[in-house]
Amino acid sequence: MADKLANIGVVGMAVMGKNLALNIESRGFTVGIYNRTASKTDQVMKDHSDKNLVPSHTIEEFVDSLEKPRRILLMVKAGKPTDAVIDELIPLLDKGDVLIDGGNTNFHDTMARNAKLDKSGINFIGMGVSGGELGALQGPSLMPGGQKEAYDLVAPILEKISAKATQDGKPCVTYIGPNGAGHYVKMVHNGIEYGDEELIDESYNIMRNVLGISVDDMADIFKEWNKGELDSYLIEITADILSRKDDLGDDKTKPIVDMILDRGNNKGTGKWSSEDALNVQVPQSVITEAVYARYISMMKDERVTASKTLAAPKANEQIGDKKEMVEKIRQALYFSKIMSYAQGFEQLRFASEAYGWNLQYGQLAQIWRAGCIIRAQFLQNITDAYDKKPDLTNLLLDDYFKDIAAKYQESTREVVALAVKMGVPVPSFSAAITYYDSYRSAVLPANLLQAQRDYFGAHTYERVDRDGMFHYPWYEEQ
Amino acid sequence: MADKLANIGVVGMAVMGKNLALNIESRGFTVGIYNRTASKTDQVMKDHSDKNLVPSHTIEEFVDSLEKPRRILLMVKAGKPTDAVIDELIPLLDKGDVLIDGGNTNFHDTMARNAKLDKSGINFIGMGVSGGELGALQGPSLMPGGQKEAYDLVAPILEKISAKATQDGKPCVTYIGPNGAGHYVKMVHNGIEYGDEELIDESYNIMRNVLGISVDDMADIFKEWNKGELDSYLIEITADILSRKDDLGDDKTKPIVDMILDRGNNKGTGKWSSEDALNVQVPQSVITEAVYARYISMMKDERVTASKTLAAPKANEQIGDKKEMVEKIRQALYFSKIMSYAQGFEQLRFASEAYGWNLQYGQLAQIWRAGCIIRAQFLQNITDAYDKKPDLTNLLLDDYFKDIAAKYQESTREVVALAVKMGVPVPSFSAAITYYDSYRSAVLPANLLQAQRDYFGAHTYERVDRDGMFHYPWYEEQ
Repeated sequence: MADKLANIGVVGMAVMGKNLALNIESRGFTVGIYNRTASKTDQVMKDHSDKNLVPSHTIEEFVDSLEKPRRILLMVKAGKPTDAVIDELIPLLDKGDVLIDGGNTNFHDTMARNAKLDKSGINFIGMGVSGGELGALQGPSLMPGGQKEAYDLVAPILEKISAKATQDGKPCVTYIGPNGAGHYVKMVHNGIEYGDEELIDESYNIMRNVLGISVDDMADIFKEWNKGELDSYLIEITADILSRKDDLGDDKTKPIVDMILDRGNNKGTGKWSSEDALNVQVPQSVITEAVYARYISMMKDERVTASKTLAAPKANEQIGDKKEMVEKIRQALYFSKIMSYAQGFEQLRFASEAYGWNLQYGQLAQIWRAGCIIRAQFLQNITDAYDKKPDLTNLLLDDYFKDIAAKYQESTREVVALAVKMGVPVPSFSAAITYYDSYRSAVLPANLLQAQRDYFGAHTYERVDRDGMFHYPWYEEQ
Repeated sequence: MADKLANIGVVGMAVMGKNLALNIESRGFTVGIYNRTASKTDQVMKDHSDKNLVPSHTIEEFVDSLEKPRRILLMVKAGKPTDAVIDELIPLLDKGDVLIDGGNTNFHDTMARNAKLDKSGINFIGMGVSGGELGALQGPSLMPGGQKEAYDLVAPILEKISAKATQDGKPCVTYIGPNGAGHYVKMVHNGIEYGDEELIDESYNIMRNVLGISVDDMADIFKEWNKGELDSYLIEITADILSRKDDLGDDKTKPIVDMILDRGNNKGTGKWSSEDALNVQVPQSVITEAVYARYISMMKDERVTASKTLAAPKANEQIGDKKEMVEKIRQALYFSKIMSYAQGFEQLRFASEAYGWNLQYGQLAQIWRAGCIIRAQFLQNITDAYDKKPDLTNLLLDDYFKDIAAKYQESTREVVALAVKMGVPVPSFSAAITYYDSYRSAVLPANLLQAQRDYFGAHTYERVDRDGMFHYPWYEEQ
């Protein structure tokens, strides 16, 4: 037994758990640590012998090492390993203790666990953690969802360890909502991240294949872009990536990006966010196309075969001034990013209603301003938009976003049209512009769709001139 | 007790169940019928007193009225009602009996029920039924999945009641595969149907909003299109729909389509197919955009608000000869339809591998040639493609489809570019052309994506010049 009780315990000493434990300790807390394989715990103690860490080799010892009500952060693999630890912990915990799952957990699982544990009086928080290994150590963006009273018990610690926004020093953590809300918001964050990455990658691909710009020049272009309204972590690292040379090959002057195979992997959270967009019935096409872009990138062998046999366009388009076209691509990128966030926040609104979460949209953008992968200057504009109008239905209806869209739509149309004619794939760019055009269409062709559905399935239709559901006598003689 | 045992029984006397029972009876079989509310059964007997129907008022009586091994077709609401009937039936059935669920059931449920019933030796077939009420009565397309030996017991009946292809008179039914395969194939059929409808609706919308063609003229155009390679049920009914006048309003000379509200509803199967495309990690963007198009169409009030404030493009494009443009739209429609089917069949291939079904792709196209909503002349080309090469990875690699794509790609690019510049939304058209361009790209920009993922998450990357997974020292000094 430790001679001093720990303020909080962390289970799981893989890199994320270890870094979060060290982060918490660095803010003046004593941290109990435990790992199923004890050697890992011992290694952490050996590497950080000067820290206020209280190691345990058994789970009973670990639980006993914590002050009450106990606060336990689980940083173990999502799914069955998380369930296994929870099952071990339950008999050892008291009513009012707080379990926090900081793993990459599907929100459905978090909802089920929260409901199950709530019956025994144990609080359960599902917390999204974004920022990678470095963020965990230095300050992540945290998205905790669960019982509000449980959040209040851990808020002082979470606020200290989280990233702070450069704009106002505010911590990048807030109470997200009940049960699965935190993991849901993290999931949408990741979907948005997929969208951001795909839009950058499409911009790069157009510059590479339509404009023939060198990797070095593109590094400068992204550096330049990062000084303006696109200022963000992902643009910043893209500029850095494009400036790096190969560290392994024969020719160390080659850009590393040219040595990397174009098979884009994924760990499933982007997919989850598209799946639930489909489920709550909200259009989320920019992100979904980004997910599909990863899938098709994985079909490398098929693509190589197809490239030898499928016809390319003649593609004798006038491209005009290269510099002007680069600026148009920048505008298309910002325009499309706005569409992606408009869809993402609309998804959050639909989900909040479907699952009863009362999400505070402006606060979500606020806690994404630092610490997480999608951190960007423009998130402030989202917070501002919701501050002005908390019940805003869609970001596009806010003046700032509406005006940008109005200003940049023509460039986006031009870039998409050019890429389509030149045969360079722009799935997320084109999803962005078609979303904009669908959303601003007072009348869509779904009148014909409803006629078709009523024709073959007697599904009935609504009318423009009166209320009610109607069925047309399609099969009677005209 | 009936004096003659029935060859097969049907549970559920709503319109689909009743029509299937009458269809079976019309082929020379005696059919036991049962409905939870007995008055419905009585009504059927009253309306069809001359038929070989054996009515039962209790489920025990119903089971006793059937010859062994019993063949029972469930036509009840999917979900809990189906489970309720199955639970009532189980204790009354014998080993070797065959239960067929002909409802709109999710394939996951079918897999679970098949596994559960299999333990008690009862065969369970999940069967997709397409063709609507009329199809059920006159000849639907049937997609049964489950135990092969159970299929053999019902095949003689299913072959007789199914639609017959006009090309060769072959029945539109075949053994699809084990457990959930039948309902899965029906689900993809419905996703493809969503795609077909959306592509027709986008064509209509471009003709309406870009070319300003009247509804009457469009009726003629679709009638014309139906005589060529687009020949299909959905094009045929679209022509018919556009020629119909309002039956309810003050002005009976107005096209009915102009009186129908543009809110496109859905019953979930299109959504399911996109969800599982995401799950088995196959790009299925044309159908997914069609699902999202329905969702955004449902946001009518938001769209009307947005239409008043979001900027439209200047849109002073040269449209050129109207007739030529209509032909280009026709080509874009056929091109996009081919992309949608290429994606749908690739989804079937991924699913077949993921779930272990050994699907016969050519046979699936074959049984869709008649009876179902997507019936079309061009399905024969799909069957031919798989006959030539049963292990074809993608339809686009078959000569017929490759050649059409080569011929029609330029028109598709032109139509998409024009619509995007004019501000007319073409989500599925643009998903089709970007899919084509992604699929024929030997190199996609996912090299940059992998660099980004390795940068912020240490996810490692593959190289173009050697095997293995690598991590770049991003955080070391350059």
